[in-house]
Amino acid sequence: MGGDHAPGIVIDGVRLAHTRLPHVHYLLFGDEARVGPLLDRYPELRGVCTLRHTDEAVSNDAKPSQVLRTGRRSSMWLAVDAVAKGEAAGVVSAGNTGALMAVSKFVLRTLPGIDRPAIAGMFPTTRGETVVLDLGANVDCDSTNLVQFAIMGEVFARAVLGLEQPTIGILNIGSEDLKGNDAVKTAAITLRESPLPIRFHGFIEGNDIGAGTVDVVVTDGFTGNVALKTAEGTIKFYSTFLKEGFRHSWMARLGYLLARPALNKVKIRTDPRRYNGAMFLGLNGIAVKSHGGTDAFGFANAVGVAVDLVAHGYSERIRKELERFTLADRESTTCPAIGG
Amino acid sequence: MGGDHAPGIVIDGVRLAHTRLPHVHYLLFGDEARVGPLLDRYPELRGVCTLRHTDEAVSNDAKPSQVLRTGRRSSMWLAVDAVAKGEAAGVVSAGNTGALMAVSKFVLRTLPGIDRPAIAGMFPTTRGETVVLDLGANVDCDSTNLVQFAIMGEVFARAVLGLEQPTIGILNIGSEDLKGNDAVKTAAITLRESPLPIRFHGFIEGNDIGAGTVDVVVTDGFTGNVALKTAEGTIKFYSTFLKEGFRHSWMARLGYLLARPALNKVKIRTDPRRYNGAMFLGLNGIAVKSHGGTDAFGFANAVGVAVDLVAHGYSERIRKELERFTLADRESTTCPAIGG
Repeated sequence: MGGDHAPGIVIDGVRLAHTRLPHVHYLLFGDEARVGPLLDRYPELRGVCTLRHTDEAVSNDAKPSQVLRTGRRSSMWLAVDAVAKGEAAGVVSAGNTGALMAVSKFVLRTLPGIDRPAIAGMFPTTRGETVVLDLGANVDCDSTNLVQFAIMGEVFARAVLGLEQPTIGILNIGSEDLKGNDAVKTAAITLRESPLPIRFHGFIEGNDIGAGTVDVVVTDGFTGNVALKTAEGTIKFYSTFLKEGFRHSWMARLGYLLARPALNKVKIRTDPRRYNGAMFLGLNGIAVKSHGGTDAFGFANAVGVAVDLVAHGYSERIRKELERFTLADRESTTCPAIGG
Repeated sequence: MGGDHAPGIVIDGVRLAHTRLPHVHYLLFGDEARVGPLLDRYPELRGVCTLRHTDEAVSNDAKPSQVLRTGRRSSMWLAVDAVAKGEAAGVVSAGNTGALMAVSKFVLRTLPGIDRPAIAGMFPTTRGETVVLDLGANVDCDSTNLVQFAIMGEVFARAVLGLEQPTIGILNIGSEDLKGNDAVKTAAITLRESPLPIRFHGFIEGNDIGAGTVDVVVTDGFTGNVALKTAEGTIKFYSTFLKEGFRHSWMARLGYLLARPALNKVKIRTDPRRYNGAMFLGLNGIAVKSHGGTDAFGFANAVGVAVDLVAHGYSERIRKELERFTLADRESTTCPAIGG
């Protein structure tokens, strides 16, 4: 029931996901009176969808704390709960991000050694793709949070992206050691000096995201969210300029027609819907957040992200990796996340 | 003497600036043995340039504190000092940003009511241009700093950009009041509730920068710097994709040839060199920082920015405006910058 165009785009998204991933089954939570008729339009979904009725839904402007108090019968809560109960392998929602994070954290709980889950997303780069976290779950982060994000991102890059030795960078305003705030400086020292089996590249700058300098970009949720949306906005304004350019003369129009197949590839490669599906890392279970304003194509991609995480056994692998990182030992004062 | 290709690009930049702005005179500070021969190549500069020798220069990796202690004979310090003494109307440097800010702050001092100067720069948008500050002078900002940035940006937009009622937005991770960290929340309340003659739009998000939602974007130096470089990196990777696309087939190549004049306009409009020249706002004097890696074209634009600030009497106007904002009254506790 979440997102700007729910439940319509959710059902259309499930239908599209079904054509790509025919083996996946869906538990749908929402208002039967609204979802039922939409489902009835697609007979092919009958065998793979189970609809569970609830007439409560989390609104887009609901405060997370309020949802935690009163939202137990909401479609969002029931969907997350299905993951906790083992009825579902993961949850996908296009609803209120803050509420989804709060409910997921409350119901699924964080993994041992993780204080706060992070939102991770994929950015297109000239070299391929880079995972960036946190994208907005944690507005204020200390160095311990950043180190935990580095570990979660590293495990994700190995387990899901299949990279053998992913490189990690901390987003900063310069590459020199003396640049930045205390959190990034301390986190860098910890990652550099710790015996962790992590390939820490050091500090990177905003332009390194698009350049694909590292495989995993670690940042606080405020900066990461601004970087994500600035990149999206920049692509939008650049493509607006391009469109205007191609309309500028008949020669340019003709040029556009000839180059269109190639240009469409660029468009596809930078389409934000392709990168839809932000992953909540650090939880006992898989939760994926779809952009609220996306369409069926974007929602199907978010479903694909969740299926990918399940297929790669991410939950089990990150648990094992975290044990390896001895995150359980939380005694050390300078870096409680790593310990001795 | 500052920047990656100094002093060559500085002299070439001055030469280019001279063709655009023939009435401007230049005081050049640097090593005569290196700068002299470069100047000699351009007889047209003889009448408008005065070279003052010093064999000291601030290195790119020098710590600002170290420059403040030992850099009084450096070309950077002497150039800033010329502004303080009234010998120059403004200073332009492609050198060490942190050192230039520290020296400018020490020598020129901040304007009454301003705690910390900010670095402001222009971003291209679909609607034209937007000024963003701070771009990296202040890694940690409290709400008072942000409110002062809003005022400095507002005055800049009126005095230099000629906007009658510029709109101000604070960069955040959502437009709702409950989003963000304490600094942005408190600054927003102050700007909203204060009797300041400011058109405060409220919170904006990263994508609003490129959309040109507001005329002035206010943010802390960490976030602003990351946003600036992320936008630059995104343009770079998008244009790399485009180039690959146009090389993809002979049809695309032909299309490119036909559309090239129009595409060049897009390239020019998004060329980071066009936006070169970050302004240090909040000082008793005009200081402009050129990107260290720019070329003569970029450096000439930075000179143009400084000349623009001088021509619009920015120093005098911001002083008057600040009086109007009664910033001098620093007694109030909730908002020391505004006062009663």
